[in-house]
Amino acid sequence: MARILTGIQSSGRPHLGNILGAIKPAIELSKNPQNESFFFIADLHSLTTLKNGPEREGYVKAIAATWLAFGFDFNKNVFWRQSRVQEHTELAWYLNCFTPFPMLANATSFKEKAEKLSDVNAGLFTYPVLQAADILLYNANIIPVGKDQKQHLEMTKDIASRFNILAGEEILVLPEPQIDERIMTIPGLDGLKMSKSYHNYIDIFLPENELKKITKKIVSDSTPLEEPKDPETDITFKLYSLVASETDVETMRQKYLNGGYGYGHAKQALLECFMEQFAEPRRIFNYYMENNEELESILVTGEAKAREIAQDTISKVRKVLGFSS
Amino acid sequence: MARILTGIQSSGRPHLGNILGAIKPAIELSKNPQNESFFFIADLHSLTTLKNGPEREGYVKAIAATWLAFGFDFNKNVFWRQSRVQEHTELAWYLNCFTPFPMLANATSFKEKAEKLSDVNAGLFTYPVLQAADILLYNANIIPVGKDQKQHLEMTKDIASRFNILAGEEILVLPEPQIDERIMTIPGLDGLKMSKSYHNYIDIFLPENELKKITKKIVSDSTPLEEPKDPETDITFKLYSLVASETDVETMRQKYLNGGYGYGHAKQALLECFMEQFAEPRRIFNYYMENNEELESILVTGEAKAREIAQDTISKVRKVLGFSS
Repeated sequence: MARILTGIQSSGRPHLGNILGAIKPAIELSKNPQNESFFFIADLHSLTTLKNGPEREGYVKAIAATWLAFGFDFNKNVFWRQSRVQEHTELAWYLNCFTPFPMLANATSFKEKAEKLSDVNAGLFTYPVLQAADILLYNANIIPVGKDQKQHLEMTKDIASRFNILAGEEILVLPEPQIDERIMTIPGLDGLKMSKSYHNYIDIFLPENELKKITKKIVSDSTPLEEPKDPETDITFKLYSLVASETDVETMRQKYLNGGYGYGHAKQALLECFMEQFAEPRRIFNYYMENNEELESILVTGEAKAREIAQDTISKVRKVLGFSS
Repeated sequence: MARILTGIQSSGRPHLGNILGAIKPAIELSKNPQNESFFFIADLHSLTTLKNGPEREGYVKAIAATWLAFGFDFNKNVFWRQSRVQEHTELAWYLNCFTPFPMLANATSFKEKAEKLSDVNAGLFTYPVLQAADILLYNANIIPVGKDQKQHLEMTKDIASRFNILAGEEILVLPEPQIDERIMTIPGLDGLKMSKSYHNYIDIFLPENELKKITKKIVSDSTPLEEPKDPETDITFKLYSLVASETDVETMRQKYLNGGYGYGHAKQALLECFMEQFAEPRRIFNYYMENNEELESILVTGEAKAREIAQDTISKVRKVLGFSS
């Protein structure tokens, strides 16, 4: 039985890139009866870059609704908001004291963020320590991550080992990253990786007319309608091939190669495909966004489950450190 | 009504320097009916330098027993262990995200510690942020500190202001440091400032025979017994003058100046003075060290009081940041 843990930062509404690249694969993994899945909304982490409270609350709801919209089984698994389990920040403090300063100062992600952002705060610097606490609180074995997160996982293992040496026993479980090299990079409107920070993302939960406006913004070249087009280099085609059925993708490919089929037609087909493929998730998403009490109740139930496990770990840690009575 | 907050790190047993320099003056302040005193044992901070759990537990008890031994009124005031109020680490995380990285990197105390210590950890780096949380959780107005802590207090005010600007109102109370320039520097056995890290301290709660051995270690010059001695430069005399009555100090001064009075005599007089002056605190200290359940019960009561105030502050902070439901 493997315990798989995934957190998603609440710094924006989930977009197509998050859904295809992280949420759907994670939900697939969670369906394996051998696995126990721990999914949480990393709202504490989002404070490093997002200060606006009402915005964060809106994003947290949208993320929770998205997981439910794509069929995450919150009864079988554990589903919670990080900020509702105080043990996250408590363990983070303990782990801070086991984290060499140079390890954080040399972290690639911190250096990159420090160069890009104007608000370089201490939360950004100790980000990997809170992440280590998230993982170690729940004795998670497997952490599916992108390649950019590999260094943070190595830090988690290093910090946990330092603690375990002091304890004289393996109190904190060393997790393994599961880096999927095949992981899909979802192209955004401009062909770069779809990302909130590049402002090139597609929010598939928008009302149809707004979603239509967005799909029209997908960049294409200036090949005239009547000429043949190269499906391999076109962004609309790439996006279509990620969501449409194989047959439909093949049909569109032929249309591209034959000519007489414009990018406008392809974008319209993509929009229709979104509306069809995501009809059920859109319905569920909207349901939870309109029924906040129900969403809240699901999260509160998950938080009670999460808290129980977290408290068990923290009480062992406190005992080692001399913080139990 | 001023709210005065003082924390003492549990990285050692309290010694004469702590007692005369910090504990007794703080207890005097707390006796003013205009003041409300908040005293806590900073056991979370001690983790930055002390990893041994059982050692920490022993120090925490000794510190608590010392406050009680010198007459701290735990009914009128608030008395607790930092680690028992989870809001300290929770607020510290929020404040981390309002603390510019360079502010911490340039802190004098961090630079000094980083040069001296082999274990330079992230806890040491974010030490001032946890300290800010300690102060801001309780809306403390006045923080009596040594000159070396002035920079940390400035940071607390800076961090609180940044948060209040976001909130659009003064949710966090900006504290004022109260720097006592006249504060006594208590000399240690070697004449340097008495400090655990210099290993030159006097533990006045030791059994008499051990305390006698310690007083014999006080450094003195080699003036022969029969010759006159300079009271102004002698360490034993300085220590005696800090604890004995004015008349007794005057008598000893004359003996120094007259000659025929050895350092051994002075040390014996100092020992007797310790035993007499601290007879009642020694009795109370030993009582609590032997009756741990009673000590624990006093702390637990204090922690309930502290938690109530801390939770009130944290709920306001969470609301601003979008962490309330």
